[in-house]
Amino acid sequence: MSLNHLLVLNAGSSSLKFGLFTAEAEPMALATGLIERIGGAAELHLKRAGGAVIADETLPEAEGATHRGALHAALTPLFDAFPEAKILGCGHRIVHGGRNYAEPVVLNDHALSYLETLVPFAPLHQPHNLAGIAAAQAAFPQAQQVGCFDTAFHRHHPFVNDTFALPRRFYEKGVRRYGFHGLSYDYISGQLKQMAPSLHAGRVVVAHLGNGASMCGMVGGRSVASSMGFSALDGLPMGTRSGQLDPGVLLYLMDQEGMDPQQISDLLYKDSGLKGMSGIGSDMRTLLASDSPHAAEAIDYFCFRIRRELGGLAAALEGLDALVFTGGIGEHAAEIRSRTCRGMHWLGVELDERRNARNETLVSTEFSRVRVLVIPTNEELVIARAAARLSR
Amino acid sequence: MSLNHLLVLNAGSSSLKFGLFTAEAEPMALATGLIERIGGAAELHLKRAGGAVIADETLPEAEGATHRGALHAALTPLFDAFPEAKILGCGHRIVHGGRNYAEPVVLNDHALSYLETLVPFAPLHQPHNLAGIAAAQAAFPQAQQVGCFDTAFHRHHPFVNDTFALPRRFYEKGVRRYGFHGLSYDYISGQLKQMAPSLHAGRVVVAHLGNGASMCGMVGGRSVASSMGFSALDGLPMGTRSGQLDPGVLLYLMDQEGMDPQQISDLLYKDSGLKGMSGIGSDMRTLLASDSPHAAEAIDYFCFRIRRELGGLAAALEGLDALVFTGGIGEHAAEIRSRTCRGMHWLGVELDERRNARNETLVSTEFSRVRVLVIPTNEELVIARAAARLSR
Repeated sequence: MSLNHLLVLNAGSSSLKFGLFTAEAEPMALATGLIERIGGAAELHLKRAGGAVIADETLPEAEGATHRGALHAALTPLFDAFPEAKILGCGHRIVHGGRNYAEPVVLNDHALSYLETLVPFAPLHQPHNLAGIAAAQAAFPQAQQVGCFDTAFHRHHPFVNDTFALPRRFYEKGVRRYGFHGLSYDYISGQLKQMAPSLHAGRVVVAHLGNGASMCGMVGGRSVASSMGFSALDGLPMGTRSGQLDPGVLLYLMDQEGMDPQQISDLLYKDSGLKGMSGIGSDMRTLLASDSPHAAEAIDYFCFRIRRELGGLAAALEGLDALVFTGGIGEHAAEIRSRTCRGMHWLGVELDERRNARNETLVSTEFSRVRVLVIPTNEELVIARAAARLSR
Repeated sequence: MSLNHLLVLNAGSSSLKFGLFTAEAEPMALATGLIERIGGAAELHLKRAGGAVIADETLPEAEGATHRGALHAALTPLFDAFPEAKILGCGHRIVHGGRNYAEPVVLNDHALSYLETLVPFAPLHQPHNLAGIAAAQAAFPQAQQVGCFDTAFHRHHPFVNDTFALPRRFYEKGVRRYGFHGLSYDYISGQLKQMAPSLHAGRVVVAHLGNGASMCGMVGGRSVASSMGFSALDGLPMGTRSGQLDPGVLLYLMDQEGMDPQQISDLLYKDSGLKGMSGIGSDMRTLLASDSPHAAEAIDYFCFRIRRELGGLAAALEGLDALVFTGGIGEHAAEIRSRTCRGMHWLGVELDERRNARNETLVSTEFSRVRVLVIPTNEELVIARAAARLSR
C-alpha cells in the first residue's frame, strides 16, 4: 500500500493539535484532532473535516501523561476511521527556526540539533514542539518529518527591522526581531496572490488577530516588518499577553515589586492583555458581550494599538495599499474591524459597514484608497503543503 | 533690596546645571553654569549668557562632594559677577510629577512628600532632583522653590495612551505611560502658537532629539501621545539608551544570560542605543563623521525608528499637519533630518534639502502637505517662567 497521507502536528505545552491530510501537492484535510490537558486528565477531540465527531474521550492516565503517549492513543480512533491512511510525512509547526531557517526543512539529526540550540529563545514553546517531533518519530518511523517555522516567513527583513539598539554582541548571539505567525502570513500572501495579484504586489499589512495577535507588513508578498519582535510577547496586546511594554516596567517589577523572572513571565504571558485589562477574561467574544467598563477599555485599547501599529508598519512599507484581517478575531469580529478602522481616514481606509457586518471578503468602500479584506487563514494547510513537497 | 532674580536648577546624578534669570514674567537669562563630577573631582563652568567665561575651576574636595556643597561653591563667583542679584525663586527641573502634577507647583512640604513617593518610578533621576531642591533650600531659605516636571505636559493623555495591557492594579499603582521631555514640548508648543497658530491648532508631532530622545503627538498644542512610556527608556533609541525593546528580551537576559536587574539597567541605560549599536560612541556627530559600517547602521536605525514612531503617532492623532525637529540633534543635524524624511512622501512629507541644509525654520517644500520645522528648544526658559509666575 502506498504512503498516501500526511499528518500535521502542532504541539503546545499541554496540548497537541493534529490534522490528517491527503499527500497531494495541494493536500486535502480529512480530519482534525485536539488533545488537551496532556499531563493531567487528557482529553481527545477528533472529528472529520466535515464536522462529524469521530471521538470525544478522556485518555487513560498512562497515555495522557506525555505527548508521545497521547499521540499514540489518538491514532487508534483516527486509523479506525481512515483505514486506508498510511503516513508519508509529518509536518510540524515549530515556533522558532532561528536566524537560519527561512523555509520549511526536513528534520534530520542536524536540523534537530540546531532546533535544540534555539530553546533559550523560546523556552515556553520550543521544547514542546520538539516533544511533538519525537512523538511523531516514534509513531511513524518510516515517515519524513518536516519542520515549518513561525519565524521563517520574516527572515528576509531589512536590518532595521531585525535588530534592537543593544550592543552588537546580542544581535550576533541571536537577539533579533524574529516575528511570528509566519505560517499564517505565508498562507494569506498566497491567497492574496490568487485573489488580487496587484494588491499582492503592493504594500500590504496583515493583522493576524487571534488569541495570539501580531501584524505583518509585506511588499510584493514578502514580509518586511512585524509587530512582534524577539518573543511572542511584543507588539499588540493579546488574550493574556501584554504586547508592547516599556522595558523600564520590567526593571520596576524586579526592583520595586520584588518579582522574580518566573513571576514576571507568568504575569506577561498569562495574566495581561485583554484578560488583565478587563479583569473578566481573554476571549474577545466575552468582552464584546460584557457591559463592564473595563471590558470596553480593553477593547478600545486593543483596537487603538492595532491602529498605532498600522501607522508604524505603513512607515516601514512607505505607504499602504491594503489591510487584511485574519485569525479568529480578525475573521469573525466585525465590530473589532469596525472600531479599528474608525479614525483611519487619514491613511485612506474607509470601511463599508454593511459589507463588514456580513464578513464579506472585501469590506472597504469602492472609494477607499486602501483596500480592506477579510481572509480566513489556514496554517495547517501551509504545513501540509510543505510536508507534501518535502516528503517526496 | 528687592528680590529680582531667579535661579533655574537641573540636578543629575553627578551634575548640576543652573541658570540665573531676571524675575520678569518673560525672564531673561543672565548666566548659565554647570558643575560636573560631583562626588569626584568636581568642576565648575560658569559663563554669561553672551558667552563670556566667569569661572572654569575645580572645586575644593569638601565642597565638590555633595550637590549642596557644589551649589554653595558656585554661588560665590556667580554673585561676584552679579552683585545686584537677589533670588526670589528657584525653579527645579524634576523628572517625575507622577499622576498628580499636570502643571508646575510650589514645592511645599506636602509636594515634597509626594515627590518622594515617586522615587520608585524614576530611581535613577528623582533622588538627585530632590537633592537639588534641598541644596537650593539651604542656599536660599527666603526663596520660593518651584517644581517643573518632565511628565506634566503629558498628563492629559487619553486612557489608551496612558496605560499598558497589564492587570489594572498596576495602572492604579502608577504604572502608566507618563512620557517625558515635557518642558521641551511645552516650550515648542508655545513657540508654534506664536509662529504658526493654524499649525499649532492642528495635529503636530515634535521630535525632541538629543542625547535623550522622544517624540510627542499634539492636537491643539496639547500632548495626546508620547513615544516614551513609564520610564525614559522606551520609544526611540538614544545616545546610550535602548529605546523600544521586546519585554521578552529582558526575560531572556535574566533567564539565559543570568543578568541581574542592576546589570540589565546598566546595559539598557548606559551601553545601548547609538553607543551599543555603533561600538564607537553615543554622540551623533562622532557617528556622522565615522566611516564605520556599524556607525552607519546605528544612524539608519535611529532615523528609521523616528519614521516608524511618526507613523504610530500619526495614527494616534488621526493624521499629521506638521513635524517639528528640536533638541541638539534635531536642531543641528541636517543630515539626520534629511535621512529621516526620506521615504515619508506617503505621509505628505517633502523636505526642501536646501532649506534643510541651512537649518532654516521651515525646511519643507512649498508643496509639502505636512510642514516640517526646526525650532530650538529652551527648557530652562519654561522653568524660569513658571518660577517667575509662582514666586510672586
